[in-house]
Amino acid sequence: MTAVRGSTGRPTISDVAALAGVSVSAVSKVVNNKGRIAEPTRQRVLDAVHKLQWSPSAAAVALRGARTRAIGMVSRRSPDLLSYDPHFGVLISGIERELAPLDYGLLLHIVGEEEDAERRAYRRLAEERRVDGVILTESLVNDPRFDLLRRLGLPSVLIGMPWRDDPVPAVLAPDQERGLVEAVRHLASLGHRRVAYVCGPEDRVHTGFRRRVVEEQARRHGLSAAVLAVPDFTTEGAAAATDEALSAAERPTAILFANDMMAIAGISAARRRGLEVPRDLSVIGHDGLPLGALVQPRLTTVGHDLVGLGRAAALTLVAALDGTPADVPAIAPPGLVVRESTAPPGA
Amino acid sequence: MTAVRGSTGRPTISDVAALAGVSVSAVSKVVNNKGRIAEPTRQRVLDAVHKLQWSPSAAAVALRGARTRAIGMVSRRSPDLLSYDPHFGVLISGIERELAPLDYGLLLHIVGEEEDAERRAYRRLAEERRVDGVILTESLVNDPRFDLLRRLGLPSVLIGMPWRDDPVPAVLAPDQERGLVEAVRHLASLGHRRVAYVCGPEDRVHTGFRRRVVEEQARRHGLSAAVLAVPDFTTEGAAAATDEALSAAERPTAILFANDMMAIAGISAARRRGLEVPRDLSVIGHDGLPLGALVQPRLTTVGHDLVGLGRAAALTLVAALDGTPADVPAIAPPGLVVRESTAPPGA
Repeated sequence: MTAVRGSTGRPTISDVAALAGVSVSAVSKVVNNKGRIAEPTRQRVLDAVHKLQWSPSAAAVALRGARTRAIGMVSRRSPDLLSYDPHFGVLISGIERELAPLDYGLLLHIVGEEEDAERRAYRRLAEERRVDGVILTESLVNDPRFDLLRRLGLPSVLIGMPWRDDPVPAVLAPDQERGLVEAVRHLASLGHRRVAYVCGPEDRVHTGFRRRVVEEQARRHGLSAAVLAVPDFTTEGAAAATDEALSAAERPTAILFANDMMAIAGISAARRRGLEVPRDLSVIGHDGLPLGALVQPRLTTVGHDLVGLGRAAALTLVAALDGTPADVPAIAPPGLVVRESTAPPGA
Repeated sequence: MTAVRGSTGRPTISDVAALAGVSVSAVSKVVNNKGRIAEPTRQRVLDAVHKLQWSPSAAAVALRGARTRAIGMVSRRSPDLLSYDPHFGVLISGIERELAPLDYGLLLHIVGEEEDAERRAYRRLAEERRVDGVILTESLVNDPRFDLLRRLGLPSVLIGMPWRDDPVPAVLAPDQERGLVEAVRHLASLGHRRVAYVCGPEDRVHTGFRRRVVEEQARRHGLSAAVLAVPDFTTEGAAAATDEALSAAERPTAILFANDMMAIAGISAARRRGLEVPRDLSVIGHDGLPLGALVQPRLTTVGHDLVGLGRAAALTLVAALDGTPADVPAIAPPGLVVRESTAPPGA
């Protein structure tokens, strides 16, 4: 068939007319939905359009029924955050571990922080049929993506907690509270009485959820908990929040962070103020990235089964595309990993 | 045109025959290259095949001339390494920074360590026309990919140093030696006399190049340099190599590592042996990842302009696809970033 590749003829409106056995103007009427055309004729034209995959626009691609064997992932984070927060890379590890043996690829679009760019990216993925489905992460308060994807007819699966009762298929670890429940209990049992929680952007569903768990558990154990929200996930934001927390008249003796890189940046910021971790300040990260076991002091952190979540998302989506039941290995619940960055206050 | 989407009719061999005005068996003869067919008839059939994009196989997609607006990246590393080595994430940051505004996506295939899986992935990308071109990293000694890509007709650009005179388009920082030249000079000027170099897998072109630079510079400054090759880029491999280096009768007072995560793992391994960095051992990383500035001690490292390399690769490839000259911002040469993990021996 290689000889075919050299051919340059693209289907034209005349080819559609010839295949359907109608006039060019009849094709034009059907396609533009103008004028009166008998239903059987209209069907013949649409069938010919479909068979020739003819279109004046890029929508031609959408007419194909074939699988693209690509799964899309659109991220609204800044491209820089990929280099600062390895969390995303670990999720992708899990996703790729399942997609690779199935010969699927992962199509990444990192669109920056504009909502419009995100919407445009999804629309192109759907209309130009670049992917068979998409994996979403980090659902937002009033997340507009799920409605958009339903309208676009693009199958999707969310990693994490959906916004309220949004009926999007989601993969979620069991016992979501567990890691933070254990973290606050750990601090209380070490004797801490004043803690701070440096949380992520407040438009994320998980930020609100985790904040409520920390506040509830702090109340339960009789701790005061100051919450500082960082508008993004940067290490700069984490360092500034650490400085703010440590400047308070009654400074906290322990800080929980929204992720591990932020916790490592917080340890650096504390050190610049002459405080040693864990002697003068206990620090708990979040995510359980491999690097937490390599830094000094080794980081106590709320571990998440990110690889398991990525694998489950990939398997769930591919099963939905195939119309088969998903056979997804169990995802481990989040749990505290105690290492060296926590100790009794003033130890 | 939305009504068309509901249509289920796919083009058949009869449609091809009808459009070409020949019999079904004539189509079959042409497509299978069997039997005698007059050239004008053959051309009419091929033209109809092309217009209908008809194919018994997935090769149909290859018949389309349209751009996919996707760039491929096939990685032979294990998916786990994505989570352990953030280097790849930083390169992707740079690539996405240029692709996103051009509405291009990046199609990742992480195929594991089999050469066959890699070849199959490239073949599918090309034959099924899933991407417009590919970006390659880490060229190998006797790298088989470039021949394959030429045969597949898939435009490509390599990030880094090609194998010998391989005429593949490559983006490369100027003054490749500079960072390691500065690193060895830095150690010599601190008074080190015995150093070790924990290098990456020896099948990488850059491993051989960097090793030669370190050995040359060590000779120049009168240092002894033991080289330990790690067969992959894992932190476990780095820890084992560190243990080996530090078990030598004449143990080195400084170790250079192939990347930053390996250096951080090496610092951990040294600490487990009761050695403090930089008091008892100086450590130099490689890549200049953001996290090196956050760990304790802050990591001295050979910085690379990974974001610049990623951007240059994306711009070079897209320009080649468009047939326009590439307007690529300058890539910074590698250079030593001195922080806290290096000091005079026994300081």
